[in-house]
Amino acid sequence: MDELQEGLGSWPISCEVVVQWGDMDAFNHVNHTVFLTWMETARMRYFSSCGLIELMDETGIGPILAGLRADYLHPVTFPDIITVHTTVTRIGASSFDMGYRVTSSARDGEAVATGTVFGVLYDYKSGKSVQIPEELKSRVLELESSSG
Amino acid sequence: MDELQEGLGSWPISCEVVVQWGDMDAFNHVNHTVFLTWMETARMRYFSSCGLIELMDETGIGPILAGLRADYLHPVTFPDIITVHTTVTRIGASSFDMGYRVTSSARDGEAVATGTVFGVLYDYKSGKSVQIPEELKSRVLELESSSG
Amino acid sequence: MDELQEGLGSWPISCEVVVQWGDMDAFNHVNHTVFLTWMETARMRYFSSCGLIELMDETGIGPILAGLRADYLHPVTFPDIITVHTTVTRIGASSFDMGYRVTSSARDGEAVATGTVFGVLYDYKSGKSVQIPEELKSRVLELESSSG
Amino acid sequence: MDELQEGLGSWPISCEVVVQWGDMDAFNHVNHTVFLTWMETARMRYFSSCGLIELMDETGIGPILAGLRADYLHPVTFPDIITVHTTVTRIGASSFDMGYRVTSSARDGEAVATGTVFGVLYDYKSGKSVQIPEELKSRVLELESSSG
Repeated sequence: MDELQEGLGSWPISCEVVVQWGDMDAFNHVNHTVFLTWMETARMRYFSSCGLIELMDETGIGPILAGLRADYLHPVTFPDIITVHTTVTRIGASSFDMGYRVTSSARDGEAVATGTVFGVLYDYKSGKSVQIPEELKSRVLELESSSG
Repeated sequence: MDELQEGLGSWPISCEVVVQWGDMDAFNHVNHTVFLTWMETARMRYFSSCGLIELMDETGIGPILAGLRADYLHPVTFPDIITVHTTVTRIGASSFDMGYRVTSSARDGEAVATGTVFGVLYDYKSGKSVQIPEELKSRVLELESSSG
Repeated sequence: MDELQEGLGSWPISCEVVVQWGDMDAFNHVNHTVFLTWMETARMRYFSSCGLIELMDETGIGPILAGLRADYLHPVTFPDIITVHTTVTRIGASSFDMGYRVTSSARDGEAVATGTVFGVLYDYKSGKSVQIPEELKSRVLELESSSG
Repeated sequence: MDELQEGLGSWPISCEVVVQWGDMDAFNHVNHTVFLTWMETARMRYFSSCGLIELMDETGIGPILAGLRADYLHPVTFPDIITVHTTVTRIGASSFDMGYRVTSSARDGEAVATGTVFGVLYDYKSGKSVQIPEELKSRVLELESSSG
């Protein structure tokens, strides 16, 4: 999270996830891709809260993933309960950044991974990136300020 | 495959799959659910070959999975190349059965699992099962006879 | 569950699972293999409760999956919270059967799938099936009677 | 890949992967985590080729994932055949960087994603990072020079 815009970064959304036995790989800890699936679930909850899912259903304009960065701090094993926190840290003309913090109940809430996702608002019909509507920006700012 | 109707059971479709390292679980062999993902890929190739994917795109009428049965004969480990064979063994008024045979290249083509899937033709708009059209039955019989 | 032995079938173990957005496939509902991953998590909790995980760690003797059967009753979508109930229904000389019942919170606890798993006790060192020890049978019966 | 050490970056290892239907998510394209599973498979092939898997089996010293970065260039859909190329770009005292390039057969070999993984050599018994042995460095350099 190189840039943090004013009014953003308040971590308004979080969700709990139960670790499955099958999430573990042959190294006997949860596979590194599963952490990203957890972040994705938190992302969808954020998108739902700020009206982006509704926008996508109505207009075919929705988010597309351009890139991500993840840092793995501690291995996770079954059984455990995970909490993922997420926040928008930057909104540009047509792109945005989101931060993630993954904590483990077995580690008393300690962070086991952090992540950043680089997203773009995209018209799935025309196949082009589009400007982020002012109303969507306002709802993100509202959401972020509600837990500031 | 309790019932085998005349003209069916010829195993006309097969596809190859490359085992991923991440398919293995904490018991150090490929997780049992991955075998079902392989069968699903072969199923979609069958559906594509007999015109069922096209039907679904045009009418919203498509297959739905009602049940399955799998028998695991040998563990699979990374690396390996898998071949999945599939065939329709029964077509009823609105339901059908498909058989699966999963073989391993590391075992010189020996079967590592077999499976049966119980499917229903379903109208995704009305949420009800529908009669299997005669044309679809004909195309399945053609596909099965082509490799009889 | 064709056979139900006396003292078994009491559904003593259950666990909750949070549906992930990524559990859904291109048909926009949770992929059929994910239901089996949920059953597997409940199975591991059962194995842990009856001492089978401990036995495996100490002796290399543990369960192996021989087959399964699943029936899909209703589609599941994100978001939802799932509860999986499991019970041992049969213990043979070296094999056992387990039943599963998967319920959905979004459907007020209605069952969305049921399943049966056929397992064998297996010596991972010698590569052969082994007799189920009397002590293990007793612990399973105890577990089942505790919630009878 | 900010740093590229002399003698590295030759992309000596690649592997082919067959896209599964179940790799697609509710957005109707392959889920972003699957690209990382493909990179992981290529990584394990590299580790196998340079002797790191052997080292791990013998001593309990092996690689651990500290972080990753991925850029998504084009969506992938079923059916497709993917090729993943990988190379070591930096070897430090106890850490290393690897680059990935994922290409699609449906796009005539065009890149659909790139990635970088940050790894550490780790003693799984003591739980501490360890120095990368000179012999392992030599084998990596040999592997990279063989296709330079």
